[in-house]
Amino acid sequence: MKKLIIASTSTVHNSGYLEYILPRLTSFFEGVKTILFIPYARPGGISYDAYTAIASKGFETIGIQVSGIHEYNDAQEAIANAEGIFTGGGNTFELVNQLYKNNILESLSKAVLTGTLYLGTSAGSNICGVTMMNTNDMPIVYPPSFTTLGFIPFNINAHYLDPDPTSKHMGETRETRIKEYHVFNNTPVLGLREGSWLEVMGDTITLKGNLSARLFQPGKEAKELDSESVINL
Amino acid sequence: MKKLIIASTSTVHNSGYLEYILPRLTSFFEGVKTILFIPYARPGGISYDAYTAIASKGFETIGIQVSGIHEYNDAQEAIANAEGIFTGGGNTFELVNQLYKNNILESLSKAVLTGTLYLGTSAGSNICGVTMMNTNDMPIVYPPSFTTLGFIPFNINAHYLDPDPTSKHMGETRETRIKEYHVFNNTPVLGLREGSWLEVMGDTITLKGNLSARLFQPGKEAKELDSESVINL
Repeated sequence: MKKLIIASTSTVHNSGYLEYILPRLTSFFEGVKTILFIPYARPGGISYDAYTAIASKGFETIGIQVSGIHEYNDAQEAIANAEGIFTGGGNTFELVNQLYKNNILESLSKAVLTGTLYLGTSAGSNICGVTMMNTNDMPIVYPPSFTTLGFIPFNINAHYLDPDPTSKHMGETRETRIKEYHVFNNTPVLGLREGSWLEVMGDTITLKGNLSARLFQPGKEAKELDSESVINL
Repeated sequence: MKKLIIASTSTVHNSGYLEYILPRLTSFFEGVKTILFIPYARPGGISYDAYTAIASKGFETIGIQVSGIHEYNDAQEAIANAEGIFTGGGNTFELVNQLYKNNILESLSKAVLTGTLYLGTSAGSNICGVTMMNTNDMPIVYPPSFTTLGFIPFNINAHYLDPDPTSKHMGETRETRIKEYHVFNNTPVLGLREGSWLEVMGDTITLKGNLSARLFQPGKEAKELDSESVINL
């Protein structure tokens, strides 16, 4: 049975890395000694080593060790042997690019579908959707495809932001962009606000955290889902 | 000699479509009776006809007719015969996708390099850069390539936004995103604020409008260029 935590962000305002979600991670990863970290999204172009050190420090407080996938000669084997997997945030284009380049999409899919615990934050959550087409990131590299892992039957818009009615900026709001997406695509999109996450237990997907999330479906009005909603799409 | 106006936006806050730049467009397009409009970026998924009607209305006040490229059987011929070309804003991924699908990059390049007047706003300006890799748009379609027309030797970040020091949002600032781009790429990037535009006259590129623009180069501190600066890169 697949078991995933798909979080909008690693960090909420005025809080440490993963701090807001650590209580839940403690129970989610109960019994796990080591987590395999996928640092490919490398925020700000940080090195894989430096990013893995940040993830290690985050998990240290709950007694879990972290190793970076780049430390292994065989990335597919590392995934197959992992007790748990964590894909961190950063640039989704580069993350997806590296997933394809390292040829690990199939391994990841197989591991997660057979029960390896998975945590994603931000870009690491975007790749749990059907495609990465609702990322907010800048297309700084050209990946071979926008198709991602499809652990959930919809796409994620991480760091979802409500329109600012006081803004004088003429760039599109997040809602406008997602609606534009639905002119060209039919996959539903969930706008996950910072501090929200999804828990996927087999086929049951539940919204967690204190906030509501905004669901966009083609041809329908966007709607707010309350925390603890079970999402059936 | 190439002659382009590359504008950050079509519309500034509290102003009509193209209104802020119409005085300059009047002189730029002097003697031109009809402009060929490329509506492929179709903001919000608007139809080509509806978008062309908006462009027509914008140019009506300065006595110039507008025809949409989709109205012609042969898009390449339409470009070759155009007195002036205007590519409007919207989604840069879809715009670039359609430029490739309709096989008009070469025609556009040839026309502009031999002196056909070109106006771009937002997405229509992004494509004047070397690549579209500094767009702010959502990747709602997968184009065959991110390579664009390269009329200028750098990329454009349209609708450039300064960081908001009061924000509690954990998503990346525009500056962070562009710096991340330079971990992977060497092409300089110009952040063009709304109301700014570039005038390209042959090899001379001048910043116009009331605002400064922010220049990002790999391995260098970002710097502000004053209005009327000539940009040599």
